[in-house]
Amino acid sequence: MIVYVNGKYFEENEALINVADRGYVFSDGAYEGFRIYNNKIFKLQEHKNRFQRSLDELKISYKLENEIEEIYKNLFIKNSYNKEDELFYYMQITRGVAPRDHSFPKEKLEAGVYAFLSKKAVNLDSYTNGIKVCTLPDNRWARCDIKAISLLANCLAKQTAIENGYDDTLFVHDGVITEGTSTNVFFVKDDIIYTHAATNRILNGVTRNFVLNLCKQNNLKIVEFPLTIDKLSSIDEAFLTGTSGEITPITKIDSIIIRNKKVGKITKKLQKKYREYLDENYY
Amino acid sequence: MIVYVNGKYFEENEALINVADRGYVFSDGAYEGFRIYNNKIFKLQEHKNRFQRSLDELKISYKLENEIEEIYKNLFIKNSYNKEDELFYYMQITRGVAPRDHSFPKEKLEAGVYAFLSKKAVNLDSYTNGIKVCTLPDNRWARCDIKAISLLANCLAKQTAIENGYDDTLFVHDGVITEGTSTNVFFVKDDIIYTHAATNRILNGVTRNFVLNLCKQNNLKIVEFPLTIDKLSSIDEAFLTGTSGEITPITKIDSIIIRNKKVGKITKKLQKKYREYLDENYY
Repeated sequence: MIVYVNGKYFEENEALINVADRGYVFSDGAYEGFRIYNNKIFKLQEHKNRFQRSLDELKISYKLENEIEEIYKNLFIKNSYNKEDELFYYMQITRGVAPRDHSFPKEKLEAGVYAFLSKKAVNLDSYTNGIKVCTLPDNRWARCDIKAISLLANCLAKQTAIENGYDDTLFVHDGVITEGTSTNVFFVKDDIIYTHAATNRILNGVTRNFVLNLCKQNNLKIVEFPLTIDKLSSIDEAFLTGTSGEITPITKIDSIIIRNKKVGKITKKLQKKYREYLDENYY
Repeated sequence: MIVYVNGKYFEENEALINVADRGYVFSDGAYEGFRIYNNKIFKLQEHKNRFQRSLDELKISYKLENEIEEIYKNLFIKNSYNKEDELFYYMQITRGVAPRDHSFPKEKLEAGVYAFLSKKAVNLDSYTNGIKVCTLPDNRWARCDIKAISLLANCLAKQTAIENGYDDTLFVHDGVITEGTSTNVFFVKDDIIYTHAATNRILNGVTRNFVLNLCKQNNLKIVEFPLTIDKLSSIDEAFLTGTSGEITPITKIDSIIIRNKKVGKITKKLQKKYREYLDENYY
């Protein structure tokens, strides 16, 4: 695979950055992950706005112009991808290379920019039949609204899920479900859809907002309020939203089996409307 | 400066790692910082034990042997340092290079090892006259006991301090002072010394433990219990402990001036005992 690093394109095994990049010693950077449909970036402007917000919140003085689109085009060509390929596009921007000191360097740095474009198909079994998740304490920092590369807590939680026979983790903070390790989470009870409000405790997902709009357009009642863990056993449906998985049904949470492991009608309806939107707008 | 990366020594501007190192995209790694006195590593075994614990907690399967000492020796020679130089030694170990996926790769990776040895003198003005710190919400993750490279929250807090005219930040979690951005914090009130217990909310500092021992050896009463922020205005003394700064007096916290900005007698006594210990054991 050919990847992009700081203005040039390299074979991935030759794609290098300096060890003193603050992304490497401090996780001092932000990123975005994009889904590609038919050689088009899904919700490009929304991702770009969020990327800029993350950089601004971290006070990384980098103004995004059209590099996301340009690097994408080059990676697509250089890797000889086809329009039919299901692709995942990743870009991260770090503060840059400087002697190790927690405070920001006084001189303006050249930001570190890394991007790749890889094949990544939706897991059809998960999409159709759902996944099982566990709950774990939300050990993450208090600024989950910033899409930062300091993802260690997310990695550990995902790994713990897998080691215990689950597909992923739902984070629990102060007794409520916040989100997944790289997804937002929605619950359905008595035909009302619940998801955590876009506070500092969750990443305000592009797909989350798209699904919220789908709900409104289809007259589904949505409440941006978190689910307390004591209510987990009484829910009718649950699903994750994310760039890669779109809408992924959840059929089991810890030892709680949801609807006898059958994917619920609202989840299915939203998957269908999502696909219709893609067909109309990206194909 | 010559630095160490994955088995080899490089000029720092030629010291590179692969962009897909999990340290770069996930902050998936641990580190240690060591103080050098007279060409000897301060409290080597304590640092090594903690480094191994951090790696174990992160499930990075890397067993430390004598690489800390060996790389140190080589860096000292290659950089033509002298015994008289005040040196700071840094080493970080990441899980290694793998395609980006939150869960750990199934195959065993080659860990990424990076180390440098740089000149870093104690700030004599801070050491003698003290510093001013502000308090900020402790936004960090819940595993501050792991010395992980996911230091973004620490960087932001340190930077905020500096932008507001302070030297550093004390973190406040649930109404108590936990620690500094790269130091532990001690308070003195009525000849009793207080510091946060070694829970998940602080890094159990090597210098912290050394100072705790100094207190015991000198019959100073010490209580491992955190200070609530409402008591800040009534304290007699405050100081930070850390590998680089040893014992750094605090003379102002937010708008609270401590003891008319005069460094307290217990702080001075501990600084003296610290220096005596160094003179006896490292020179």
